Amino acid sequence: MVDIRNEIPPRDIAQFLARALEFSASARALILSLLAAGFEVKRKPDRSFVTSADLRVEQRLRELIGKHFPDHGIIGEEYPPTRPEAPFQWIMDPIDGTEDFVQRMPAFGSILALHYRGEPVVGVIDHPVLDIRVSAGLGLGTHRNGERVILTDLDPAVIDGSERVMLPARANFTKHRDDGALFDAVARAHPNHRIYRTCFSHICAILGMADAAIDYGNPIWDLAASRILMEEAGGKFLGVRAWDVPGVGRVYGSIMGKPTLVDRLATHFNQ
Amino acid sequence: MVDIRNEIPPRDIAQFLARALEFSASARALILSLLAAGFEVKRKPDRSFVTSADLRVEQRLRELIGKHFPDHGIIGEEYPPTRPEAPFQWIMDPIDGTEDFVQRMPAFGSILALHYRGEPVVGVIDHPVLDIRVSAGLGLGTHRNGERVILTDLDPAVIDGSERVMLPARANFTKHRDDGALFDAVARAHPNHRIYRTCFSHICAILGMADAAIDYGNPIWDLAASRILMEEAGGKFLGVRAWDVPGVGRVYGSIMGKPTLVDRLATHFNQ
Repeated sequence: MVDIRNEIPPRDIAQFLARALEFSASARALILSLLAAGFEVKRKPDRSFVTSADLRVEQRLRELIGKHFPDHGIIGEEYPPTRPEAPFQWIMDPIDGTEDFVQRMPAFGSILALHYRGEPVVGVIDHPVLDIRVSAGLGLGTHRNGERVILTDLDPAVIDGSERVMLPARANFTKHRDDGALFDAVARAHPNHRIYRTCFSHICAILGMADAAIDYGNPIWDLAASRILMEEAGGKFLGVRAWDVPGVGRVYGSIMGKPTLVDRLATHFNQ
Repeated sequence: MVDIRNEIPPRDIAQFLARALEFSASARALILSLLAAGFEVKRKPDRSFVTSADLRVEQRLRELIGKHFPDHGIIGEEYPPTRPEAPFQWIMDPIDGTEDFVQRMPAFGSILALHYRGEPVVGVIDHPVLDIRVSAGLGLGTHRNGERVILTDLDPAVIDGSERVMLPARANFTKHRDDGALFDAVARAHPNHRIYRTCFSHICAILGMADAAIDYGNPIWDLAASRILMEEAGGKFLGVRAWDVPGVGRVYGSIMGKPTLVDRLATHFNQ
């Protein structure tokens, strides 16, 4: 199987990654200033939160991308897509975990990724309050605040209920269709779970703080950076579900983490 | 009903609180230095983690308390009780969330409380990595990093599934006896839940980042600071279960947070 991403010169990937880190740093500075200065909070039609901060951070990222990469497309949570036909697409969730952001819970993050013909090339997840920025470029490894991240697999013998699994909330399994029983089964089989409801759960798995993370019922911008971050760290990213929700678009179910545990968790989704 | 804590001169409470804050600051400095320098990790007979850091932090806190309050008792997770007959008892979990501490997940915390004849007088929960220290003294209010915390109750109309509830993991409901069905029922009724598995879940409720938190199946040192922190912030703390576990001692089930939601959550435990 040919990886279409091999068409991209490695030097370009390093440049895209360097720019993505600049963009992410700029987004962090803006987020921290808005946290200090205050922002407006509204509810979207689906009752989820949106703030003036989400809008302003996405605007800033779009401006920066448009300036440096005028022929690239942009997909973001808060505005319509730009240049959807372009082979390179920047995908972002300016503030993932807006409810946490509104409540000043520190686990919210800012997600930015570059995809080439649907495949991830660069990914950055930034946690401004936690001061954790994790980045990856294809073939360049995954780094946390500049330091290389290397995952080691889990010994199957320790998958005994003590393995640490980041779960989505039960709400993620019921908001689009009733998969609540799937939540119940996974929670029962892996009782040492944590639920953070933001991309920090992905980061916990990418950095090896947890053994795996499950994401469920979320659109592409919530996942856009996680596959490249996980694969470049030596872990496994597995898409297990994808379906279309009217008025929302395509949503996904994914598992990421130490390969042995990812495969074990996948069995719940194959039934 | 007479509150036995009224026997304590208010000036003494302010002094106890000031000392508790000193002790907590000293524990934080030690924890951060051990995080940087490294520490040994072992498994206890119940397979939970203990590290040389847990032991050293508890030792330091015991030394400080013994120096300033030689007639007070001390109860901690890692060493046997000191002066169990004393009316004043310092109760501590030097590192709550040791597994998170070992894995460098930032939600671990350090718990310290002073009880008088079984009732809480002073409480401090400190999160070294998050730079959040929350403290309270009877009649003195609850403060976060020195700033007053005041909770407002929840409008009952918004208890519609969007309320934010911090849950224990399912493992907490099954490790001592099989109350797994109780976890399933609460998770189903309140699907916008987060699970942090450390005292940071209490802090989220105490600071109003979440609307309520449930703690289940943990000993006194995990809860010792939370009631006074919650009550002095204007919230409600409700003990809903207590039972003895051979080899572990007494463990508790508690609900804390905005009063209307605490009462609603309590209905699950009364069935």
